[in-house]
Amino acid sequence: MKSTVTELEEKGKAAKAASRKLAFLSTEIKNKALLGIANTLMARQDEILAANKLDYKESEASGMSTAMLDRLMLNTDRLEGIANDVKTVAALHDPVGELIEERTLPNGLQISKKRVPLGVIGAIYESRPNVTVDISVLCLKSGNAVILRGGKEAFRSNLALASVVQEATYKAGVPRGAVQIMESTDRALVDHMLKMKGTIDLIIPRGGAGLIRSVAENAAMPVLTGGIGVCHTYVDKSADLNKAVAIAYNAKVQRPTVCNALDTLLVHAKIAPQYLPLIAQEWTKAGVEMHCDKRALSILGPIPSLKLVPAKAEDWGKEFLSLIAAIKIVNSLDEALEHIEHYGSGHSEAIVAEDKSAAARFLNEVDAACVYANASTRFTDGSQFGLGAEIGISTQKFHARGPMALRELTSYKWVIIGDGHVRP
Amino acid sequence: MKSTVTELEEKGKAAKAASRKLAFLSTEIKNKALLGIANTLMARQDEILAANKLDYKESEASGMSTAMLDRLMLNTDRLEGIANDVKTVAALHDPVGELIEERTLPNGLQISKKRVPLGVIGAIYESRPNVTVDISVLCLKSGNAVILRGGKEAFRSNLALASVVQEATYKAGVPRGAVQIMESTDRALVDHMLKMKGTIDLIIPRGGAGLIRSVAENAAMPVLTGGIGVCHTYVDKSADLNKAVAIAYNAKVQRPTVCNALDTLLVHAKIAPQYLPLIAQEWTKAGVEMHCDKRALSILGPIPSLKLVPAKAEDWGKEFLSLIAAIKIVNSLDEALEHIEHYGSGHSEAIVAEDKSAAARFLNEVDAACVYANASTRFTDGSQFGLGAEIGISTQKFHARGPMALRELTSYKWVIIGDGHVRP
Repeated sequence: MKSTVTELEEKGKAAKAASRKLAFLSTEIKNKALLGIANTLMARQDEILAANKLDYKESEASGMSTAMLDRLMLNTDRLEGIANDVKTVAALHDPVGELIEERTLPNGLQISKKRVPLGVIGAIYESRPNVTVDISVLCLKSGNAVILRGGKEAFRSNLALASVVQEATYKAGVPRGAVQIMESTDRALVDHMLKMKGTIDLIIPRGGAGLIRSVAENAAMPVLTGGIGVCHTYVDKSADLNKAVAIAYNAKVQRPTVCNALDTLLVHAKIAPQYLPLIAQEWTKAGVEMHCDKRALSILGPIPSLKLVPAKAEDWGKEFLSLIAAIKIVNSLDEALEHIEHYGSGHSEAIVAEDKSAAARFLNEVDAACVYANASTRFTDGSQFGLGAEIGISTQKFHARGPMALRELTSYKWVIIGDGHVRP
Repeated sequence: MKSTVTELEEKGKAAKAASRKLAFLSTEIKNKALLGIANTLMARQDEILAANKLDYKESEASGMSTAMLDRLMLNTDRLEGIANDVKTVAALHDPVGELIEERTLPNGLQISKKRVPLGVIGAIYESRPNVTVDISVLCLKSGNAVILRGGKEAFRSNLALASVVQEATYKAGVPRGAVQIMESTDRALVDHMLKMKGTIDLIIPRGGAGLIRSVAENAAMPVLTGGIGVCHTYVDKSADLNKAVAIAYNAKVQRPTVCNALDTLLVHAKIAPQYLPLIAQEWTKAGVEMHCDKRALSILGPIPSLKLVPAKAEDWGKEFLSLIAAIKIVNSLDEALEHIEHYGSGHSEAIVAEDKSAAARFLNEVDAACVYANASTRFTDGSQFGLGAEIGISTQKFHARGPMALRELTSYKWVIIGDGHVRP
């Protein structure tokens, strides 16, 4: 059953029409839909798991890596996890209708700024089927319609999950058309989707760097990009050694495959001889391979059983997403700032320093979504920041920056109430 | 003296470098720069007016319309007006560094969301030379560097004004490079500018619909579009006739050449026989030409000396920017809402109604930057809304909507302060 361009256009129109009604749907109905989704996920688990099994077998046969297969795989536990995440979103405050500002002008005109949904959101994502539910639920709660386009490896799983979302959503009284999924993996349809400005208000790409870049370059409408994190931790000469070891260890090791993990460790030359052996030994216990500049190599070289590799030019500014860290020794805070400006991706950057003025300069001068003093970059996360959920981490400065949740899926309108007011 | 692409790239680099310092420049220095600009404008007026005279003569000789020539022309009074506007911006609150949110997590981590500048703003604008000063000043105050590209008809005036801005700015201690102007009117350079993603963070086009569309379509970076207003006023069957006459008169006549002026008047069929003759007679005194649908024509036709024209299909959704109004009779609020959804540009839309539920539906359901009940759309304006200034009126939903001033030229960063915190 292949979607044609015409079908996609129809889905777009239906989503747009639904979004007009969704914009002022009650929180009660939206939450009813969300709780319905959580229940239906469990009630229809056999069907979902059967679809997922087919996807899994096909991907396995085609030689997909174990890590990717694991991301693709669903089971009852994982479905319960997804259902619980949906319940969490249901419990979050509804941002739609929030009064952002309100004032009465001297002439009596009442002006308010009221939060409204963006409209129709297009989601283009890869592999993990839970994204189908996550994004649908965040869009619904924030009053947006959504058009989903998942990866071909999870095609059947995504269709089954979207069908659950649609059933529960429409049963709760949400206008039909609010959740759409593309029933084809044809690449040309994605290209067409990216041109549907006027229908789709925002595109959210979720996946690897290639997908994100391609969407950002080709979309006619705004794109919320992010998720690419080249993260530095700078250990200042004033750093507390214990804190610096704990922070760099956590940032690299606690979950190396994610965007807020440490990629490059910058160390002030004065503290490097004491600090580097400490962190290197801890990292080695966790299996971290260190790509060192010359000076770091000369300090660490004599220590036995470290996984050391001389750093190449391409190691700076690289997102490793694995147990690899680049290490560079700098002569000053300024050199660290310059390195980060040149190689950072504007995601999360940290300084470890007891010197308050050094920390203040770092926090002020580094141009990134999240800047840290004496803490691990791993905290960059919607839930950790108290947003309750996360639709992604923006590394752009426009509209939203850093972790994004419900509020970041909204716009606002100005509402002006008069009593026959005219402009003098 | 033609700018080459290389020169433009250099200006971009200089602006980027300056923007890093501008981001944490004190309010004091920024205000000193602004007051310096106001003073230098008057001190160097001979030079500015001489340059403007050359632009004016050339445009006059090339057959520019009187209205356009008037927009181009500068004199001492106008320069004083510009200087006063600069002083107004100097007196505004500096948005940079504002704490948007602040919380301490249960684990002791301090998280705050702090307002920061966007970086480098590219401004592409037409004809009115005062924009050179306006935009420079709003960018400076909000901590952004700016690259200016004015229209060729005001080329010499813009260069003279930018030179004044630069002199006063750098004298006050603002980093060199903060204000750049393209010293060429070569179109190819604009195309190149629109591709300078990574250097220019945001493009603001100011001018006609053609310019705005072309910039929005070709820019690789975010664009703040707006300024195109197809504005409707809907007179409900419950309208107070006096208010409805005053509002539609003001919206059309008070300043017909601007984006928030009335374009189409929608009138409920029940009130049309009483209302239309009243507004038509008032409009006629002001010289308004009315493009009427059949039913409006049948009501107004018998009244002598009205300027009536049968409406054509292209009158709906047209921004007239002159003393022309389209008039359509509708059978219901729903029909009015559908018309606005189809033909509106998402700028400013008004209902005149005593029936509170009709007004509430209109305010809720119309998807526009500014929605009015019982007031003239002419109020859509940064100063009128209490923002103190205006860099434009956004009709997009992303980042900023409606009148934009200093705050809309900023982003934010998350600042996280710990004491050795790691993620469990």
